Amino acid sequence: MSLLTDFDQRNAATLGRELHQFAADLFPICRSITGDGIRRTLAMVGDRIALQIHEVPSGTPVFDWTVPREWNIRDAYIKGPDGERLVDFKKCNLHVVNYSTPVRSTMPFRELKTHLFTIPDRPDWIPYRTSYYKEDWGFCLSHRQMLALKDLDYEVCIDSSLENGHLTYGECYLPGHSADEILISCHACHPSLANDNLSGLAVATFLARFLSGRDLRYSYRFLFIPGTIGAITWLARNHQTAARVRHGLVLTCIGDSGGFHYKKSRRGNAEIDRAVGHVLRHTSEPSEILDFSPSGYDERQYCSPGFNLPVGCLMRSVWGTFPEYHTSADNLEFIRPAQLAGSLRVCASVLDVLENNRRYRNLAPYGEPQLGRRNLYGSPGGGGNGLEIPARLWVLNLSDGAYSLLDIAERSGIAFPVISDAAAILCQSGLLSPVSDEDAPANPPAEASRSEGSSGRQTIAGR
Amino acid sequence: MSLLTDFDQRNAATLGRELHQFAADLFPICRSITGDGIRRTLAMVGDRIALQIHEVPSGTPVFDWTVPREWNIRDAYIKGPDGERLVDFKKCNLHVVNYSTPVRSTMPFRELKTHLFTIPDRPDWIPYRTSYYKEDWGFCLSHRQMLALKDLDYEVCIDSSLENGHLTYGECYLPGHSADEILISCHACHPSLANDNLSGLAVATFLARFLSGRDLRYSYRFLFIPGTIGAITWLARNHQTAARVRHGLVLTCIGDSGGFHYKKSRRGNAEIDRAVGHVLRHTSEPSEILDFSPSGYDERQYCSPGFNLPVGCLMRSVWGTFPEYHTSADNLEFIRPAQLAGSLRVCASVLDVLENNRRYRNLAPYGEPQLGRRNLYGSPGGGGNGLEIPARLWVLNLSDGAYSLLDIAERSGIAFPVISDAAAILCQSGLLSPVSDEDAPANPPAEASRSEGSSGRQTIAGR
Amino acid sequence: MSLLTDFDQRNAATLGRELHQFAADLFPICRSITGDGIRRTLAMVGDRIALQIHEVPSGTPVFDWTVPREWNIRDAYIKGPDGERLVDFKKCNLHVVNYSTPVRSTMPFRELKTHLFTIPDRPDWIPYRTSYYKEDWGFCLSHRQMLALKDLDYEVCIDSSLENGHLTYGECYLPGHSADEILISCHACHPSLANDNLSGLAVATFLARFLSGRDLRYSYRFLFIPGTIGAITWLARNHQTAARVRHGLVLTCIGDSGGFHYKKSRRGNAEIDRAVGHVLRHTSEPSEILDFSPSGYDERQYCSPGFNLPVGCLMRSVWGTFPEYHTSADNLEFIRPAQLAGSLRVCASVLDVLENNRRYRNLAPYGEPQLGRRNLYGSPGGGGNGLEIPARLWVLNLSDGAYSLLDIAERSGIAFPVISDAAAILCQSGLLSPVSDEDAPANPPAEASRSEGSSGRQTIAGR
Repeated sequence: MSLLTDFDQRNAATLGRELHQFAADLFPICRSITGDGIRRTLAMVGDRIALQIHEVPSGTPVFDWTVPREWNIRDAYIKGPDGERLVDFKKCNLHVVNYSTPVRSTMPFRELKTHLFTIPDRPDWIPYRTSYYKEDWGFCLSHRQMLALKDLDYEVCIDSSLENGHLTYGECYLPGHSADEILISCHACHPSLANDNLSGLAVATFLARFLSGRDLRYSYRFLFIPGTIGAITWLARNHQTAARVRHGLVLTCIGDSGGFHYKKSRRGNAEIDRAVGHVLRHTSEPSEILDFSPSGYDERQYCSPGFNLPVGCLMRSVWGTFPEYHTSADNLEFIRPAQLAGSLRVCASVLDVLENNRRYRNLAPYGEPQLGRRNLYGSPGGGGNGLEIPARLWVLNLSDGAYSLLDIAERSGIAFPVISDAAAILCQSGLLSPVSDEDAPANPPAEASRSEGSSGRQTIAGR
Repeated sequence: MSLLTDFDQRNAATLGRELHQFAADLFPICRSITGDGIRRTLAMVGDRIALQIHEVPSGTPVFDWTVPREWNIRDAYIKGPDGERLVDFKKCNLHVVNYSTPVRSTMPFRELKTHLFTIPDRPDWIPYRTSYYKEDWGFCLSHRQMLALKDLDYEVCIDSSLENGHLTYGECYLPGHSADEILISCHACHPSLANDNLSGLAVATFLARFLSGRDLRYSYRFLFIPGTIGAITWLARNHQTAARVRHGLVLTCIGDSGGFHYKKSRRGNAEIDRAVGHVLRHTSEPSEILDFSPSGYDERQYCSPGFNLPVGCLMRSVWGTFPEYHTSADNLEFIRPAQLAGSLRVCASVLDVLENNRRYRNLAPYGEPQLGRRNLYGSPGGGGNGLEIPARLWVLNLSDGAYSLLDIAERSGIAFPVISDAAAILCQSGLLSPVSDEDAPANPPAEASRSEGSSGRQTIAGR
Repeated sequence: MSLLTDFDQRNAATLGRELHQFAADLFPICRSITGDGIRRTLAMVGDRIALQIHEVPSGTPVFDWTVPREWNIRDAYIKGPDGERLVDFKKCNLHVVNYSTPVRSTMPFRELKTHLFTIPDRPDWIPYRTSYYKEDWGFCLSHRQMLALKDLDYEVCIDSSLENGHLTYGECYLPGHSADEILISCHACHPSLANDNLSGLAVATFLARFLSGRDLRYSYRFLFIPGTIGAITWLARNHQTAARVRHGLVLTCIGDSGGFHYKKSRRGNAEIDRAVGHVLRHTSEPSEILDFSPSGYDERQYCSPGFNLPVGCLMRSVWGTFPEYHTSADNLEFIRPAQLAGSLRVCASVLDVLENNRRYRNLAPYGEPQLGRRNLYGSPGGGGNGLEIPARLWVLNLSDGAYSLLDIAERSGIAFPVISDAAAILCQSGLLSPVSDEDAPANPPAEASRSEGSSGRQTIAGR
């Protein structure tokens, strides 16, 4: 059955507001790749879906990496000589370089300055900086703030801790008929940044909630993980599970007002690549398909050569290419309810393709079956845009057991749901029958299929 | 030998006039998918070529369909209160909905109106309508005629019969050296419509006449059949013959002033698809290649998945896309002698490719043979446009037993007849030898072909 | 190691001057496909590189051809009634039709005229003509010179000889680690023509000199041969050696100011075709890739179907398409030092690709290895244009044993030397290991490579 039918009965505007509200609730938390920020975030995700929380001890080797020490922070500031907090972590958690080691000192401006980061071109924005794997500390502030600092002594405090602890991630597993899995991965390690991180987190959460309790073909695994080290940790702990991933998506930067961008998996023509490409071609919003490259988000881990999983990355604006990226301008105004809802719908459409993409066999393959006497030659009107009859003819013509419905949708140019509906109606009419996944090999030679059928219908023809 | 050489000795203008005259002779007959109209039509085709007539009884199951009852009509009209024939079948047989059940009644305009069909946008044209598989009756008339009708009682008569009888079709079989067949199919079921039907019928007839008595590589089968049910009936009765079809063309709408359109077979890259594509690329008239779709004429039956025959459809204007389609404006002025002759020549060019498309082996494959001492390096002038020498070099270079002449024509961009002539001349010179069809497999690896030849020429090289 | 690094330490301007000077030294010699002109030319090449000279007797059968008699010329002229040399071989050796038979006679202008060749459109240029395989004689002169001749008697002398002798060619073989060969071929049979012939001759000589004494992966064979008959002769005498040619280039017309043109081998996607295509895409000069055709220079012999060697042809302006081609305007001004040096560098770049194009295996293929702790995540600055890190990520991501470095360069769009350097650095870091040529098959299935590695890293993941 179509996931979309059910999905589209929901109110998009309401969904958009809920998605945005969830992002807004998560926004203030100071997340990092370890620590209580990500724990609190996962707890809020866990209020909405069945989430299993994993804690991996610092020092655990994960492939070529090691789980780092856990970082937590309570407060941080730069105080002027008059004791006023000139830069205050409590006002914006981007002010502290993420993973800063503890500092408590008074120092002259010229020394402090080497620890300050600004964006001169965007004098009101605060940059986002991290120092995960090199012990250091620093403050990020607007360029305007920095220009206001004078050649005085400042009191500097970073009340953080970097100690043995754990790396935390969340996993939501929804079992389906098949043990084959669809992987949806988002990173949950960015502090107060809305598009880069929270948009993906919100859409993934709502997608998991939408699928929960449904009768599913595939099993689904949603990962809410810290970027890079989280994906590597999950892969290291789930080497065999990874082999069951048939399709996957990394979701990031998916709430801004830009058109869609889909970065293909390393394989380049995996079913997920074709499914997303098809859905985007039939979406009214602008979209662009990008080739795989080994830069990006966690798809670079899933697509590393030892795994080479069919995992692509769905975005709106591409990370690193919009000025708000990794700055305080990537805030709750930068992501929009309608865009979040639109992204969720695209995800549901892609899953609808994957769930329903099967091969069928036309049971009346000699000539065109007489649709008229089955009342299949008249259009029911409605959603198919007059394409119901062409869709039936395409499905009948190409359903030789080798073409999948996605193949048919691609070749016909007709949107997958219309093709999928046509297949359902033809099955009901007894003209079509699904081919079991085991029996669907590569294209059988035309000669073979013809002579096979030939004997079956010979009595009819023999006169 | 080239079919075209002989073909081009005929006078195109004369041919065009003869084709048009044949269409004009057939035009008045009221054809349908059964009945005396198609019988009389086939008799006139049979005056020109050796045609075998088949009669298939009503009620015969043919795959998913059943041969319908036979329809015949003698007269039909709508008379006004003054007894004047306001709509008269004898003036134009499109006036009656084809397959109308008998009616003899007087009825008020408001009742009659539900049985009337017009084209409001084209107030002077009469539409063409059928009701083959649903018992009904009706009249087609110009919108202007209908507007002249008043709120009066009208006498309505359709003197037709719908009774057990036969479905009739014609078949012309021309044996060639091979039992493999080329299928040429046209429908013969439309009444007074010129482009849609008669153009294809006339070109097919003349093509069969042109081929009759010739020394042919392939066997040819020309089908003159009612649309859809005729193709299905033929396929049901000739399941094994169908398996011998190596190439095929459906001809329709091939006499108007538009450029050529070729709709590819379901296979998409069958030899017929490549041959027509090549011929059209080298034709001075504009042309367009269309992908296969399961809407159209009888190619949809030949390309149904149980058969998947390599059969495409050659047209000028595409059915359904020109306003005259299925109206009284598709008349003898709409088709033109020069266009009919041009279409016939394109068909002959395509058959010339298929007849002569073989693989050859260069018998002096090591380096270029010395053409000069064989007087093959000078151009004979004439038809080759200075391409004779390049054509010889291409044929020599690519004739490794794997490339066919069509492959060579495509790769070189040189028209097939020039390539074919080059092959003939090189064969005469002893530089080239045809490869028997059995010995022409897929591309042999370069290494294999090189070492094979290596031993053969070693004595020459060994010094 | 990179050939280019070493190459680029040379001074391009100096190289250009040396190349041009070598062409200038060779320019005055009257070469032909046999005779002392080509012998003297090869001797001068032999002053620079280790050249083996071959002499093949007249009358030797070579495949479909026969080695012709040897032609030599001492003097030729047309004298006017006053004894003045009006056309003088000693002033320009193009004045005599190459391979002219001896003549010593006085004849009226109207008889002489049938032996004169000019270019009316270019009245100051002398054409270049040959009559190798048909005994004849003639003079080439400027159109202006001919117009000055009057209806008088002229003394005509061609002091040439056409006698049994030898065909001469030179071969420079540079052994490498592999017996597989790279063939570089140029023709050495044109008299005073600079671009067509001397440019290729000079670049090939310098390329051979540059490679001499180096530690090479492939063995190299440079051929300095008369066009057509020389290539055929070499092939006929080296049938088995030819089978060892893995890559090859014909060099011709490579010194003028035009952009590069590369004509692909008959195979069309041989490694040489891809290597040249890649190098030209990353060259600042304009360039164009041409499909193979059986017209051209000696690639037509190497690519004849019995050999089908992967040999392309590198040019700047394409022979036959520039007005100076085969005229006295193809002189030492027409070729330029900078262009000759640029062509030499492109050749070296292509050989650098071929020498270094190997497959590697990422030894940390599960997730991305942690480049930071190896100091591989910072850019060394310099030649990579900021592409060093992306190049490392690409090499790591695609080095699954199936992708070659050229595959990676093509897919990433990053120039081969940057990719090759990245591979070298990653090898030093222990992250990458070359795959022996025997172990590099076609793309292994992703499943296979994944499970193979799976057991190897299982202990790390198992917790």
